[in-house]
Amino acid sequence: MEDKNCSSVEYSVQRQVLDELCLDEVAQKGSWSAKPTFSERLKGSMRCSVPRAKEILLSWVPVFGWLPKYSIRENAIGDLISGCSVGIMHLPQGMAYALLASLSPVIGLYTSLYPVLVYFIFGTSRHISIGTFAVISIMIGSVTERLAPDSNFLVNATNGTGSVNTNEQGAYRVQIACSLTVLAGLFQILLGVVRFGFVVTYLSEPLVRGYTTGSACHVFGSQLKYLFGLSPARTSGPLSLIYTLVNICSLLPQTVVPELVVSVVALTVLIVVKELNQCYRQRLPLPIPIELIVIIAATIITHFCDLSAKYNVDVVGEIPSGLKAPQAPDVSLFPAVIGDAFAVAIVGYAINISLGKTFALKHGYKVDSNQELVALGLSNTIGGCFQCYSVTSSLSRSLVQESTGGKTQVAGLISSIIVLITVLKIGALFETLPKAVLSTIVIVNLKGMFKQLTDVPMLWKTNKVDLLVWLVTFTCTILLNLDLGLAVSIGFSLLTVIFRTQLPRYSILGQVPATNLYLDVDTYKEAKEIPGIKIFRSSATIYYTNAEMYLEALQEKSGIQIGKLLAEKKKQDATRKHIMQASKDSHDKKEPTDSSGPHSIILDLSATSFVDTVAVKTLKNICRDLGDIGVGVYLTGCQACVVEQLERAGFFSESIPKNRLFVTIHDAVLHILNKVGQTDVILVSSLPQFSSFTCQLYAQLSGTYFANREAQQHKTWAITHNS
Amino acid sequence: MEDKNCSSVEYSVQRQVLDELCLDEVAQKGSWSAKPTFSERLKGSMRCSVPRAKEILLSWVPVFGWLPKYSIRENAIGDLISGCSVGIMHLPQGMAYALLASLSPVIGLYTSLYPVLVYFIFGTSRHISIGTFAVISIMIGSVTERLAPDSNFLVNATNGTGSVNTNEQGAYRVQIACSLTVLAGLFQILLGVVRFGFVVTYLSEPLVRGYTTGSACHVFGSQLKYLFGLSPARTSGPLSLIYTLVNICSLLPQTVVPELVVSVVALTVLIVVKELNQCYRQRLPLPIPIELIVIIAATIITHFCDLSAKYNVDVVGEIPSGLKAPQAPDVSLFPAVIGDAFAVAIVGYAINISLGKTFALKHGYKVDSNQELVALGLSNTIGGCFQCYSVTSSLSRSLVQESTGGKTQVAGLISSIIVLITVLKIGALFETLPKAVLSTIVIVNLKGMFKQLTDVPMLWKTNKVDLLVWLVTFTCTILLNLDLGLAVSIGFSLLTVIFRTQLPRYSILGQVPATNLYLDVDTYKEAKEIPGIKIFRSSATIYYTNAEMYLEALQEKSGIQIGKLLAEKKKQDATRKHIMQASKDSHDKKEPTDSSGPHSIILDLSATSFVDTVAVKTLKNICRDLGDIGVGVYLTGCQACVVEQLERAGFFSESIPKNRLFVTIHDAVLHILNKVGQTDVILVSSLPQFSSFTCQLYAQLSGTYFANREAQQHKTWAITHNS
Repeated sequence: MEDKNCSSVEYSVQRQVLDELCLDEVAQKGSWSAKPTFSERLKGSMRCSVPRAKEILLSWVPVFGWLPKYSIRENAIGDLISGCSVGIMHLPQGMAYALLASLSPVIGLYTSLYPVLVYFIFGTSRHISIGTFAVISIMIGSVTERLAPDSNFLVNATNGTGSVNTNEQGAYRVQIACSLTVLAGLFQILLGVVRFGFVVTYLSEPLVRGYTTGSACHVFGSQLKYLFGLSPARTSGPLSLIYTLVNICSLLPQTVVPELVVSVVALTVLIVVKELNQCYRQRLPLPIPIELIVIIAATIITHFCDLSAKYNVDVVGEIPSGLKAPQAPDVSLFPAVIGDAFAVAIVGYAINISLGKTFALKHGYKVDSNQELVALGLSNTIGGCFQCYSVTSSLSRSLVQESTGGKTQVAGLISSIIVLITVLKIGALFETLPKAVLSTIVIVNLKGMFKQLTDVPMLWKTNKVDLLVWLVTFTCTILLNLDLGLAVSIGFSLLTVIFRTQLPRYSILGQVPATNLYLDVDTYKEAKEIPGIKIFRSSATIYYTNAEMYLEALQEKSGIQIGKLLAEKKKQDATRKHIMQASKDSHDKKEPTDSSGPHSIILDLSATSFVDTVAVKTLKNICRDLGDIGVGVYLTGCQACVVEQLERAGFFSESIPKNRLFVTIHDAVLHILNKVGQTDVILVSSLPQFSSFTCQLYAQLSGTYFANREAQQHKTWAITHNS
Repeated sequence: MEDKNCSSVEYSVQRQVLDELCLDEVAQKGSWSAKPTFSERLKGSMRCSVPRAKEILLSWVPVFGWLPKYSIRENAIGDLISGCSVGIMHLPQGMAYALLASLSPVIGLYTSLYPVLVYFIFGTSRHISIGTFAVISIMIGSVTERLAPDSNFLVNATNGTGSVNTNEQGAYRVQIACSLTVLAGLFQILLGVVRFGFVVTYLSEPLVRGYTTGSACHVFGSQLKYLFGLSPARTSGPLSLIYTLVNICSLLPQTVVPELVVSVVALTVLIVVKELNQCYRQRLPLPIPIELIVIIAATIITHFCDLSAKYNVDVVGEIPSGLKAPQAPDVSLFPAVIGDAFAVAIVGYAINISLGKTFALKHGYKVDSNQELVALGLSNTIGGCFQCYSVTSSLSRSLVQESTGGKTQVAGLISSIIVLITVLKIGALFETLPKAVLSTIVIVNLKGMFKQLTDVPMLWKTNKVDLLVWLVTFTCTILLNLDLGLAVSIGFSLLTVIFRTQLPRYSILGQVPATNLYLDVDTYKEAKEIPGIKIFRSSATIYYTNAEMYLEALQEKSGIQIGKLLAEKKKQDATRKHIMQASKDSHDKKEPTDSSGPHSIILDLSATSFVDTVAVKTLKNICRDLGDIGVGVYLTGCQACVVEQLERAGFFSESIPKNRLFVTIHDAVLHILNKVGQTDVILVSSLPQFSSFTCQLYAQLSGTYFANREAQQHKTWAITHNS
């Protein structure tokens, strides 16, 4: 241990001892600073004027606020470069993630187009890139596969081995995805309008990370079949990932070797170039658009070598050119997808807002969580009418958008122009792109999520309860799938708050000699208990799950068996009564109170943040019962809101007056010592120096302590420990 | 306001300012007092010896402990009187509650017999009366009616109006009730053996009271048909109570008037005599056994006036005499009743332990919550094999047992002897007892539970959140029935803990001049902010649901817009760099830091009881970001366990050293003031008096404060407010 020079600053305070009543007087407790009443607020929000209308318009449609002020000189170049980079990323990711959602690739391109435009108008984040995202895609995929399984679209079904009518199935799946997306969007708009953006706070960080890692496993599992060119039976419901993996393992001998070769080659190229991108991040002006290069190369090679026909490599197939007219969602599907839609709405928003807030903090602007919810909801609702599926911001694209110099959502606008051109003119050329290549793109993009597995050793070291949340979320997500798993995980995560406060650490505090500090006597050697006074603290709020334990710990730690003493006292009372009735027979053998035990108990409530009826009752009983056996109870360290709640609950009464409440432990201790040794103190204060007799008397009364009152102009009242 | 004489005791402290590191040194922080390791504990529990074996035996079979010491002189008379009184109550209640459970009355008598004997051997409470109880009976009743509805036992079914084969149905219902009882008992034994008695703490008082009140409504609803002599269609599942009430209302014209007359007469007599019992409680040695008197009178009248045949009054019917051989429960029914069994196990235990603890506290002995669980479980399991249904302690009987002088469970033994005699010899005589009379007994016993409705106005005044728990529990219990309602209510009750900590009160603290007290500046007029220092406190633990709000409130309350300032600083840095690169052009218009804002922030964490990773990250970010913009962050009031958790989470680093942690706010303030005005302070301390210049300089640096150091032998460092 190095020799530390403790602060040389001195701490010196001299004031009167304050109980709650005195404090209110001295510090002039008032009512809370005037808050507008409900009717005033209602009036305020109903107020109508041109500036106010403008303000409302700007808050709902932020684009009118920032676009007119757009500085071309400052932002245009950055936005252009960033927009092009992101647009180029959208193409392969859009197609690949559409595959993940069990939809045709063009849907992924639509999804990279319309919602971005909507977000441009309504969004408040300047740097995030809205569009397809792996976790959302797999959530959509699980629904489309559940509601439109292959078995429903078999043509010439004989022994269950007929071929699937892919066109019809594909169209129905798009309908399902769009209905789900619209519904999720409506949920988001609703939550945003009623200002319920806070729901996302229930998704704690360990939960989100465990959940995305679990989702990554689902994504990985769903892509394996494309890598090997297998067609395992589709499964849904709990444990489906396990069944799928078992299924694929059993089918491995049927691997289509050319598909595997394509996959391995594409995977190798992608990984190597991505690593290079990472290494030379500083020197490259833009990351190499390797995903685009790979799909273009793969398309060309497949086309000219005719891999599809010769080697049975599964390709994307026809990609329709041009845009489609909007279409209302199929409302009849809503009941079937309502649960999934809610999960998609929450997860999508959670990912979006966490990214948005990160960038906002970094660049010093504000994202409005409720407006974000509305913007995302509108993107989904409108997108859903244009054959898009649910969107959120993607980490990889957003990072590129920000790092390549994007300053505003104009970058998003530019990226969607690139996607538009592709959809209109170039898309059809990707007809011979092998699906396996798209799968490799999906898998490579999972790297970041799988990296989160390193959370486990990190959390093991730092916070075991959060590790538990992570692991439970991860396991539930894998076993129960993405919707049910999320619900169970949120429930568990909320339960941990109970666990954390249900088993608090109880301690008896002692004074660090000659200071006003009271510390746990078990942890700090120098903290010494004051004889006759027990100071008890719980490390957490006292409420219904731990109130009984509080009472038990108090009895155990302080050595006062309330029940036993009460019973003894009752017996004594009865005996005394009996004796008095009988005659003046003075055989009362027992002492009225156990004089060796503590005469006062201080309950330190500084860690209490709220009080429920169970806590009030427990504290009341403690005060009453200890009072009955002659032990005084004092409360200290109550926050203003706790005092208010105690008052409202009728805690204070004649028997527990409010002046039993002290601001600090030291105030209470001084009050008690003064009360116990009242006569001596008065005696001492009138004398210029200690009389030896008084000192002894006082020391006897209050243990090893003695009062030392110096009759000088400062009138210092110092309590010094004997040792 | 009356003129209060505040304490004349003085509070005077003089010590050095302590940060966490200094404190650890001064107070000699050590490791926690040696706790036995797991292996030691295992070894300890494996230790084998005769006294230990005896100890274990006594803890599992308490009767061996107290019965040998039973003092006949002291207890026998009290136990005998009390046992007889309780036995007499058992008879009508047993029969009435059996009706409530849709079982034949003799089952209720069995239930008042066997479990009492088992509890006598294994129980630890001396005053509770085990046996039938309304809430448990109705829970059993809902299961028996669900699994053995009338429609399954129709004979000559034509248009659904055939008569019911009551014998067969009754036998099957007994089987169901016994299976449920055995399963509930096994759950209780299991929970007791693994020491899970604490689960009952999840049932907070408002929840239990709301639940029992809701149950009382169900009980009342189920008894109405007997009062009016109606036979409404049975309903089960959610909303069944509502359907039943609607059904009964529509059937009212078919009321059997003689039944109604019997009901009204019995009800009147019961209510009047019970009120008299209540009024003359003090003068009566024993309460009048009016329930027994009423059923005897009703039986005799019905028998001799032949009400059953003449007026169609529904009677109890044949009551078999004698005891039955034990029978194993029907295991095949277990899956169908597992949920209800768990609910019955928990509710039964909750009622039992709360009564047990109340009496234990009153009479100064201990009830072991885990042994109680085992005892109740054994009562149910063994009782279930003897055609008993699930038991718990009844408030009304237990009060009688205690108030008539019962001292030990010998009273229970005596009561069961009375029940045994009845079952063997007298029971058969009750054949002509009208069911309506039993119903009135049930209804009259609901009084106490309906009285709990007065909780609503009381809770409205004292605690709104607990009122919400009460109302939600009550509503859920009524609408969703007793099993599902309980589950939903427990979930909601746990959620309230989240609500209560999710929206804490955030406040800026100010110093009460010339003291070491820091209070909310909005509440206390005299609390004055120290210029340049913002002291921020949250009234609750910072954790994932409120971490973001904490950050926002900090920015709003302190007026520091972290994001904006960070962005400005970055811009300035960039500008400066640019300028420096360009030439020595000194056009830097902006100040490096905003000198009018606070220079230090103190985060008071005294209300924090645990830290999760989200909180650590939030605090870390605050420290980092505020550090970047030149504001120092200090933490105060961390409990020992919070410091430990912060350490384990790697919170402390070079940039946030541990000496940023202070014991009290005042320590941190003194440290900061000293740091800010370091030079002056040194200057001042060497001078006998203030130089005017130094004073001005210091005042400029630390706002309206000035350092006043008196060069006397006390070297007092006093900070006085200017005003």
